[in-house]
Amino acid sequence: MKIGVVGLGRMGANIVRRLIRHKHECVVFNRSSGKVKQLVAEGAIAAQDLADLVEQLDKPRAVWLMLPAGEPTEQAIEQLAELLEPGDILIDGGNSNYTDDIRRSQKLTAMGIYYLDVGTSGGVWGLERGYCMMIGGTESIVQHLDPIFKTLAPGRGDIPRTLGRESFNSTAEEGYLYCGSNGAGHFVKMVHNGIEYGLMAAYAEGFNVLHHANVGKQFRRVNAETTTLQHPEYYQYDFNLSEISEVWRRGSVISSWLLDLTAIALLEQPTLEQFSGRVSDSGEGRWTIAAAIDQGTPVPVLSAALFTRFSSQNEDEFANKLLSAMRFQFGGHNEQNQ
Amino acid sequence: MKIGVVGLGRMGANIVRRLIRHKHECVVFNRSSGKVKQLVAEGAIAAQDLADLVEQLDKPRAVWLMLPAGEPTEQAIEQLAELLEPGDILIDGGNSNYTDDIRRSQKLTAMGIYYLDVGTSGGVWGLERGYCMMIGGTESIVQHLDPIFKTLAPGRGDIPRTLGRESFNSTAEEGYLYCGSNGAGHFVKMVHNGIEYGLMAAYAEGFNVLHHANVGKQFRRVNAETTTLQHPEYYQYDFNLSEISEVWRRGSVISSWLLDLTAIALLEQPTLEQFSGRVSDSGEGRWTIAAAIDQGTPVPVLSAALFTRFSSQNEDEFANKLLSAMRFQFGGHNEQNQ
Amino acid sequence: MKIGVVGLGRMGANIVRRLIRHKHECVVFNRSSGKVKQLVAEGAIAAQDLADLVEQLDKPRAVWLMLPAGEPTEQAIEQLAELLEPGDILIDGGNSNYTDDIRRSQKLTAMGIYYLDVGTSGGVWGLERGYCMMIGGTESIVQHLDPIFKTLAPGRGDIPRTLGRESFNSTAEEGYLYCGSNGAGHFVKMVHNGIEYGLMAAYAEGFNVLHHANVGKQFRRVNAETTTLQHPEYYQYDFNLSEISEVWRRGSVISSWLLDLTAIALLEQPTLEQFSGRVSDSGEGRWTIAAAIDQGTPVPVLSAALFTRFSSQNEDEFANKLLSAMRFQFGGHNEQNQ
Amino acid sequence: MKIGVVGLGRMGANIVRRLIRHKHECVVFNRSSGKVKQLVAEGAIAAQDLADLVEQLDKPRAVWLMLPAGEPTEQAIEQLAELLEPGDILIDGGNSNYTDDIRRSQKLTAMGIYYLDVGTSGGVWGLERGYCMMIGGTESIVQHLDPIFKTLAPGRGDIPRTLGRESFNSTAEEGYLYCGSNGAGHFVKMVHNGIEYGLMAAYAEGFNVLHHANVGKQFRRVNAETTTLQHPEYYQYDFNLSEISEVWRRGSVISSWLLDLTAIALLEQPTLEQFSGRVSDSGEGRWTIAAAIDQGTPVPVLSAALFTRFSSQNEDEFANKLLSAMRFQFGGHNEQNQ
Repeated sequence: MKIGVVGLGRMGANIVRRLIRHKHECVVFNRSSGKVKQLVAEGAIAAQDLADLVEQLDKPRAVWLMLPAGEPTEQAIEQLAELLEPGDILIDGGNSNYTDDIRRSQKLTAMGIYYLDVGTSGGVWGLERGYCMMIGGTESIVQHLDPIFKTLAPGRGDIPRTLGRESFNSTAEEGYLYCGSNGAGHFVKMVHNGIEYGLMAAYAEGFNVLHHANVGKQFRRVNAETTTLQHPEYYQYDFNLSEISEVWRRGSVISSWLLDLTAIALLEQPTLEQFSGRVSDSGEGRWTIAAAIDQGTPVPVLSAALFTRFSSQNEDEFANKLLSAMRFQFGGHNEQNQ
Repeated sequence: MKIGVVGLGRMGANIVRRLIRHKHECVVFNRSSGKVKQLVAEGAIAAQDLADLVEQLDKPRAVWLMLPAGEPTEQAIEQLAELLEPGDILIDGGNSNYTDDIRRSQKLTAMGIYYLDVGTSGGVWGLERGYCMMIGGTESIVQHLDPIFKTLAPGRGDIPRTLGRESFNSTAEEGYLYCGSNGAGHFVKMVHNGIEYGLMAAYAEGFNVLHHANVGKQFRRVNAETTTLQHPEYYQYDFNLSEISEVWRRGSVISSWLLDLTAIALLEQPTLEQFSGRVSDSGEGRWTIAAAIDQGTPVPVLSAALFTRFSSQNEDEFANKLLSAMRFQFGGHNEQNQ
Repeated sequence: MKIGVVGLGRMGANIVRRLIRHKHECVVFNRSSGKVKQLVAEGAIAAQDLADLVEQLDKPRAVWLMLPAGEPTEQAIEQLAELLEPGDILIDGGNSNYTDDIRRSQKLTAMGIYYLDVGTSGGVWGLERGYCMMIGGTESIVQHLDPIFKTLAPGRGDIPRTLGRESFNSTAEEGYLYCGSNGAGHFVKMVHNGIEYGLMAAYAEGFNVLHHANVGKQFRRVNAETTTLQHPEYYQYDFNLSEISEVWRRGSVISSWLLDLTAIALLEQPTLEQFSGRVSDSGEGRWTIAAAIDQGTPVPVLSAALFTRFSSQNEDEFANKLLSAMRFQFGGHNEQNQ
Repeated sequence: MKIGVVGLGRMGANIVRRLIRHKHECVVFNRSSGKVKQLVAEGAIAAQDLADLVEQLDKPRAVWLMLPAGEPTEQAIEQLAELLEPGDILIDGGNSNYTDDIRRSQKLTAMGIYYLDVGTSGGVWGLERGYCMMIGGTESIVQHLDPIFKTLAPGRGDIPRTLGRESFNSTAEEGYLYCGSNGAGHFVKMVHNGIEYGLMAAYAEGFNVLHHANVGKQFRRVNAETTTLQHPEYYQYDFNLSEISEVWRRGSVISSWLLDLTAIALLEQPTLEQFSGRVSDSGEGRWTIAAAIDQGTPVPVLSAALFTRFSSQNEDEFANKLLSAMRFQFGGHNEQNQ
């Protein structure tokens, strides 16, 4: 198929590459032209601007946006809404808030333009591994674009089929899924990322317990402000975390792709000194908690995972100072500097 | 090799089977003799009691215990300590608390008996998939038993090698690992299970958010005791959780073995009505938090996961009643029955 | 002063009473006329409808709304906006979301009407104890209404002055405070309630630990699904929770008004059998977490407190079933019924 | 009464002072003699060593220990056990783990010596405000020492009686309570401190949300690593936290002694720049969680409060580095430095 792709960052460029490799035609546009040139060299068709991109496509046109959520995506949609015609298709493959999808789709539907929200997971590995896609919008349009999704998705690969799936077919087994009406795709992707935060935190906390397994060897100040370690003899282990992450990859209950990545990271640099520990968060982790609160769904683990990131960004500083201030007030306790 | 195995429950019996299939000789004993007979039919050698089991082994003898942690394991170790001789090897493959290993190994070492603690992960899938083993004790003894561990472990299988591991060998890639002195094996297994609780809770909470994605369709009582859903239009999705669990298995950041199992469960029974939601916990999840507290390691996610299990067992009842009582006292609020 | 009060529920009626007792004139209206009659008997002036209420007030008029947040408050404001004149004052004393205040105040300001948002704490005790008020809007208008706020507030009472406050005056010491521009009052009240959830949960969890201090006396099933209590001898206490709540009221670090109420509740009914443990939550606790997430402020304790309420409403059921389903899949574990 | 007091730190010295002021006789000993001299100047009787202290007391002797938990208390008890005679009384007023009380009382009971564990709350304010005491041991011995407890306790003071308590008497209303057999006093005190952590964290998080209420005014980097603040107009408040802490002291649901202290701290130094935010934790907060885990009692709020302290001590560093490392692996994300 022929498709327009707008936004050639890490994700967008690789999506184009994967499409080209499988004989799709991609008309591409990016704010900075360097990336356009590079992809043209790899077989893409250049567009000078959005109007030019639209002009080079066949009706019904399909334009895939791969831009940062918020303003950049919003502006592109507004401009393309003017350029596209009834029957054309606009796809947001970025990380938009699903409530934005609901709003946009209402406006675009009134103009006769189809809108799909496609949550796209895969990161820098997607080019080779394929992208897992969660799709919201009109089902017939999703079917129309099936060749595109099939190409971008990982396919069944070596992954064993789920018991009981032998008897029927579903694109879910290929790695893409029509999830429901507009917003459904980004809703499912949002929750995917919310889960991701929880999984990551579970591994991080567990490895941190292993990392501290030798605290019994350390000198500990003895004073009223510091809790004594009652059994230093229980904490005398110097674990090789790289080896442990590797062994868990095979046969254990906690094997996963995130563990695979952890094993790579700990092998490269066992002490992780390249990192400071300031952990960013993108919108989806936050939106998952906000949606859960709206629903009344308890998410103690996912929220705890989110808040550790805020704390890593030092946003707990004032709260901690206040705790020290209270302790000083009631007990005359001064802060200890380790 | 020839090895004794005591305890033929789900795990123990399959360990014997996997060993027999790979031409090891297993002398087996179990409190109830039915299981012994069954395994003898599959090629194992029966023992009448522990003394008989010890007698049938060659020096240095190796006895693998696969019994419930606590009293059953403790008693078997005490009895075997009397029966074994210096140079013999006692292996606890169950889920003992690692501090018990430290205590036992000190006593057994004084008697000249080697003790290994082997955290064994794999569940009912281990027979086919192999067991991930985390081993503590004396390294030379672990090497002596390498044929046993190699057989029980999954081996490299189809799992891609971690980037950078091409240049050196480690049993970690086979699925078993010498972790350190006594207790190290069960310590690592304990943390493994602690992580497992966190991972499971992350998926469970995420799917629960998806499960509630249609709350905007439901009637909601309007009164001062119930929060109004401000935007019911945002919660109109009836998601197919089975399909979503399947699509995430391919190409997504959160693919894992636990997700594979989730996909099986949700395919079998999308509403999970077979289950009441009373979630058991075994000791390791608890011990992980207790160890973290000793160390001063923050584990907000792992502990939140543990406490949701306690709540599922209704152990939050009195606390919740007290919350309702306070609300009644300060605001005259009566409890709502949905 | 003369003031209109709309909404004569528990809070509204007592506010009128407290004003009347201190010689203010109150013109009152309520959807159901029974409550109007009752307050007229106590000295209030009846209004037939909102128009009548506005007519009976002197310019600049002041109307205090004490209605459920959401639709009821929204509608009353829309109607009063039509009836009031430039220079008049509209006060929302209910539990509105502060973002609604920002929106409303923009609209009303354009019409020349002043809008105040007054977070009001005190519950059923406010009539005698006075109301703590957090106020947002135009400062000069707040000063104009000072006689009203002074009457409703508790005043300094017996509560010792904060060290260092001797040298200057602030209405904060009387129990009411101008907090800032519109929304500020309800923002501060929102956080007040967020904190309230955290405090309540802290007491509830602590008393629950005391409640379980005799678990060592109970029979515990011994099986692989149930964790053994290692030291039953440590949990042999039958604590008198009523007495403990009382003793903590004097001289302890955790004395508080909520503890005072807890002591009343536990004295009335030590086992709290009147309550089922289904704990409602109103909007503010949710909005606090949502605001914190917007800000990037970590609130692990306040959110944990909120989520225990959701769980008490059984909204964790599907998540728990999924946990049981995973355990069944990997370990063949069946659920235990206690 | 005549009583020996060992350990003249902040708490011990003030306990002696409060006893002396009410005409009790105190024989005092401290490792460093300076504090002994000071209290002798205030009316106490000096002891040269523990033997001398025992000698100067009348039978049955009563010795109150006010030493750091752990080794110092343990050693003093061992020495005094040799010096005391059957019928004598040993009181641990410090912060011992209640399981130590159980062990010690068994040993001392066999020697005919009575042992009381007295959880003592009050901090530096206790001298004037009185101490809240939670007592475990033999009830008749507690009654024998009633004059001592009555003096140390706050008494009823101005605090209103709990509704329903008019008809019966209990020392709980005076601020001290016999809680049960040995360990009961320290168990109740342990939970008291666990609750204290939760309460403190609730206030600290709430004030931190208020502290961040102006984030809409700040410049925010726009990139894929930083979540955009969708509604900066909602976060434009510069709150006066000192005034807010003061207003909440009167009439609000969250008034408490900890809030009183917060008001003092925020008045003294609104920005709390005296503090770095490294928050210490003593043993009781940890033991509360450990006991809850033993019991199977969910304590998500109390544990979250504890873990924020560990994080404030930077013990989350390795976990956070690992999170950044995973993000780098799957998404090529680099850490942002704010």
